[in-house]
Amino acid sequence: MFRIHTCGELRIANAGQHTILSGWVQRTRKMGGMTFVDIRDRYGITQLVFNQDVNAGLWEQANKLGREFVIQATGEVAERINKNRNIETGEIEILVSALQVLNESKTPPFTIEDNTDGGDDIRMKYRYLDLRRNNVRENLELRHRITFEIRRYLDQMNFLEVETPILIGSTPEGARDFVVPSRMNPGEFYALPQSPQLFKQLLMVSGFDRYFQIAKCFRDEDLRADRQPEFTQIDCEMSFVEQEDVLVIFEGMMKQLFKFIKNIDFDNPFPRMTWHDAMKYYGSDKPDIRFDMKLVELKEAVSGHDFVVFDSVPYVGGICVGGCAGYTRKQLDELTDFVKRPQIGAKGLVYIRCEADGTFKSSVDKFYSTDDLKAIAAKFNAQSGDLILLLAGNKIKTQKALCELRLEMGARLGFREKNVFAPLWVIDFPLFEWDDETQRYYATHHPFTSPNPDDIHLLDTDSGKVRATAYDMVINGIELGGGSIRIHDSQLQNKMFELLGFTLEKAQAQFGFLMNAFQYGAPPHGGLAFGLDRLVSLFAGLDSIRDCIAFPKNNSGRDVMANAPSKIDQSQLDELNLVIDIKPQTPKGA
Amino acid sequence: MFRIHTCGELRIANAGQHTILSGWVQRTRKMGGMTFVDIRDRYGITQLVFNQDVNAGLWEQANKLGREFVIQATGEVAERINKNRNIETGEIEILVSALQVLNESKTPPFTIEDNTDGGDDIRMKYRYLDLRRNNVRENLELRHRITFEIRRYLDQMNFLEVETPILIGSTPEGARDFVVPSRMNPGEFYALPQSPQLFKQLLMVSGFDRYFQIAKCFRDEDLRADRQPEFTQIDCEMSFVEQEDVLVIFEGMMKQLFKFIKNIDFDNPFPRMTWHDAMKYYGSDKPDIRFDMKLVELKEAVSGHDFVVFDSVPYVGGICVGGCAGYTRKQLDELTDFVKRPQIGAKGLVYIRCEADGTFKSSVDKFYSTDDLKAIAAKFNAQSGDLILLLAGNKIKTQKALCELRLEMGARLGFREKNVFAPLWVIDFPLFEWDDETQRYYATHHPFTSPNPDDIHLLDTDSGKVRATAYDMVINGIELGGGSIRIHDSQLQNKMFELLGFTLEKAQAQFGFLMNAFQYGAPPHGGLAFGLDRLVSLFAGLDSIRDCIAFPKNNSGRDVMANAPSKIDQSQLDELNLVIDIKPQTPKGA
Repeated sequence: MFRIHTCGELRIANAGQHTILSGWVQRTRKMGGMTFVDIRDRYGITQLVFNQDVNAGLWEQANKLGREFVIQATGEVAERINKNRNIETGEIEILVSALQVLNESKTPPFTIEDNTDGGDDIRMKYRYLDLRRNNVRENLELRHRITFEIRRYLDQMNFLEVETPILIGSTPEGARDFVVPSRMNPGEFYALPQSPQLFKQLLMVSGFDRYFQIAKCFRDEDLRADRQPEFTQIDCEMSFVEQEDVLVIFEGMMKQLFKFIKNIDFDNPFPRMTWHDAMKYYGSDKPDIRFDMKLVELKEAVSGHDFVVFDSVPYVGGICVGGCAGYTRKQLDELTDFVKRPQIGAKGLVYIRCEADGTFKSSVDKFYSTDDLKAIAAKFNAQSGDLILLLAGNKIKTQKALCELRLEMGARLGFREKNVFAPLWVIDFPLFEWDDETQRYYATHHPFTSPNPDDIHLLDTDSGKVRATAYDMVINGIELGGGSIRIHDSQLQNKMFELLGFTLEKAQAQFGFLMNAFQYGAPPHGGLAFGLDRLVSLFAGLDSIRDCIAFPKNNSGRDVMANAPSKIDQSQLDELNLVIDIKPQTPKGA
Repeated sequence: MFRIHTCGELRIANAGQHTILSGWVQRTRKMGGMTFVDIRDRYGITQLVFNQDVNAGLWEQANKLGREFVIQATGEVAERINKNRNIETGEIEILVSALQVLNESKTPPFTIEDNTDGGDDIRMKYRYLDLRRNNVRENLELRHRITFEIRRYLDQMNFLEVETPILIGSTPEGARDFVVPSRMNPGEFYALPQSPQLFKQLLMVSGFDRYFQIAKCFRDEDLRADRQPEFTQIDCEMSFVEQEDVLVIFEGMMKQLFKFIKNIDFDNPFPRMTWHDAMKYYGSDKPDIRFDMKLVELKEAVSGHDFVVFDSVPYVGGICVGGCAGYTRKQLDELTDFVKRPQIGAKGLVYIRCEADGTFKSSVDKFYSTDDLKAIAAKFNAQSGDLILLLAGNKIKTQKALCELRLEMGARLGFREKNVFAPLWVIDFPLFEWDDETQRYYATHHPFTSPNPDDIHLLDTDSGKVRATAYDMVINGIELGGGSIRIHDSQLQNKMFELLGFTLEKAQAQFGFLMNAFQYGAPPHGGLAFGLDRLVSLFAGLDSIRDCIAFPKNNSGRDVMANAPSKIDQSQLDELNLVIDIKPQTPKGA
């Protein structure tokens, strides 16, 4: 037997008991003839005591222990004189009577502490040591608890977890598939699923009624900071539902998570916002509504004052930042630089300071009178001491830039606290997105998304105006999940394929088995999927999903610890009927 | 709103209530001016009634409904006159006042009934319709409940579910890996995991203490009846444990499953049997102990009687089949044919009938006297009316043949009831297996399996005798899971690699990151993995794991419904720097 207790469970009530602990040496402190060793495991830290006067040999043994040695200590639980109120085992210590080194350890390349001295790269290479740190392990414990509670909730709601296949067929639409050569079917490939979308819709055709799966998904994309080639989705689908039914179930799930994980109660329904309003007031389809500071459109109010910048553009808009009228020239220049960064792309920034005395100070004073500025300020309900910031240009681009500026100002003013959560449903997304380059419509979500029944008459005449029965759950400006009511009518589905420029042959080739299935009694159905990695990151207050994944990959899709991917044997290639032919590098687009 | 109730929930207490149901048309029965429609969903079947006298238009509409149409029916719950006691909703019916066809259906290619008229191939092609059948869906509901209970138990026991990566590095040892070409790392490949073995051991090095995962695993093997290229494993690992700790935890898990899923109590500990005894008494490392009928070794007892068949072989053994002395010549010939099949490979079968009068009738009468036969019968404790069956030959092969014969006779005698469960731990597996062809030892499990501490002194001198600290859980002759205590000592691990013929370089290339990790304080650890597909099949009484998988593949690794794998676009191949070069087919070995 390696232990009687864990390193986190002994309390003053155990004083006098015999125990055996096993764990890692966190640190040793030698104070004259006394040596103290902190022994650590997943559950906590306990202090071991070695007294030279009691057992000199044992004391010497303890003095030789190195950091991260794995040890087993036998002894008696005793009350501590100097109690440590910061840890739960801080009232006791172990008077050790026997010590065994279970395994030695080389000196780790960084300290196993919450604030480690190790940089990102070395911690990724030695991920197994990084995972020993409490704060990293706690993210994964949180992940476990979140998935456990999700499963409990969905089980209560009659959802069945069904595993769909990982080795599926490739569908060239959308992001790139990872493919898997088939040895038994030479020249053919499986693909790894980007999502279980088709299979979950098939399960509805099969009458499964309520399905979910916490499913690994795969996308061979060029990776950005917050993307991983494999990620995890909480994938759900329901039959005989309208949008309202879906929102109620998953709002309930999120409320239960907030209650059980964060002990936060949301008594009221989550607010809902149309996509149109989200763009208009927040410049984003995933507004952070922890704070107000809405975008205000000003094109009419500012036009006709000979200010060519405002007169020559289709859109002028701004935000009002409370209490920032005192911003210095230097601070305003910083903000101008901020909005002019290529990622944001504004041409410049106009400000109006609402001074304490009721006057205005603006970078466009010479075009606008005090009354003009007062009228503008009134549109923001601006108060004395507020700072109004204006941007101008192309509508969508400028709204997006204002969104970034708003988030920046919100962060500066402390409105984006990680422990405040503001959930929101964004609804009524447009069904189609127009692409200027190819001069055609694309599905905003995917070709199975149902149009809003009220807008079906517009499909032929005004496609761009058709709303989808699609919805996203947004919390703190993060899109946690989204979904839609699906099309279950074959004729409407064919109409959609037509509008999206699919020939029937092409649609059949890509989605044939789903289209066939729909001829055998497909029920009305809909669902959604949450990004588990994002959800855990949000709850943990992390900046990157990488920190809640046990063994993540870097931006080149590489596991630097395990050195994957790697070359494979020629015999493996031969068996797969493959030859590697590396072409000279050409710049790769998206 | 599509429904107020499901098709499985209305009872006599609901009589008089207004309701809306949605579901599929199971069948329609026209009886004069009355038409009855059974509407079905996942939860049950409810009878709808249409009366020509009440509403002729609605009645006509009902008469046009086809099988598997999706409908919505509004009406009033009423008590039935002819109650159907076979279904839970059988006391009521719905007097329909409005009917809507939500979707039509082509006539399905087979009947959606428990006993369908569809063959295997057509049901696999239309798997989404096959999944509508109650008995198929129930297997997947059972799978959901089993995984849910497993998670609940392991969570209670402080196990953390951690997702390990699906895109990993290839390890050429063992079965073939599926590989995934990396676009971002030209010429390099990921592999899909055959199991999370290395990662779960790393998590122990990371101090996770207790890990589990219900994990997809992949093996590119030539498929036999009960294999799938992707399968699901309940993968577990624990730190600071000895074999006993592991067995206790997972015996507890299995007992909880039997209690919650089958309402079966196992009050006593599961029996344990050494691998050596399993081979000796059952000719198998996974004995079906629902019945006794142990193998008896007879080489000494039968030698020296001039019967050259017995004299010339190293092993003679047999079983005693109770009450079968009356077997006819024809029946015995059938058994002879059975053991002579190539899969079993015996040369012939010797029988001894223990007649009611105390005499013996045997196929080898001329070599053995009545006293000789009596002595043989005594070794089996044979009674009057029993039938003794003997095989002879090479020891291992003959034991295996006797095992098959024993299972066959057990089945004939009704000893292998699917609702009787006989769990067993098989322990003390040999650490190494000798391979005659390559003239060297292989690891019976894998190179990380710890030898039994009592046998370490034999490693150099008598490797074949070294027992592993490895264990399998066997139920009803099915190996449900297995595992071992792992080596945590780097020196012992290096010794193992040496004995297995790995050079240090080769070991480093394949398992380098694990070996490095072990230098930083690896705790003693061990674990096991259960095959989820087999476990569900056992509980469901299925003959193939395929029936508890939503979308299984056939023996060529093909999903005939979705037509995967398939050809991919040339542009995809180009991006992956791959060229297909199909060589002329050569016969493929294992």
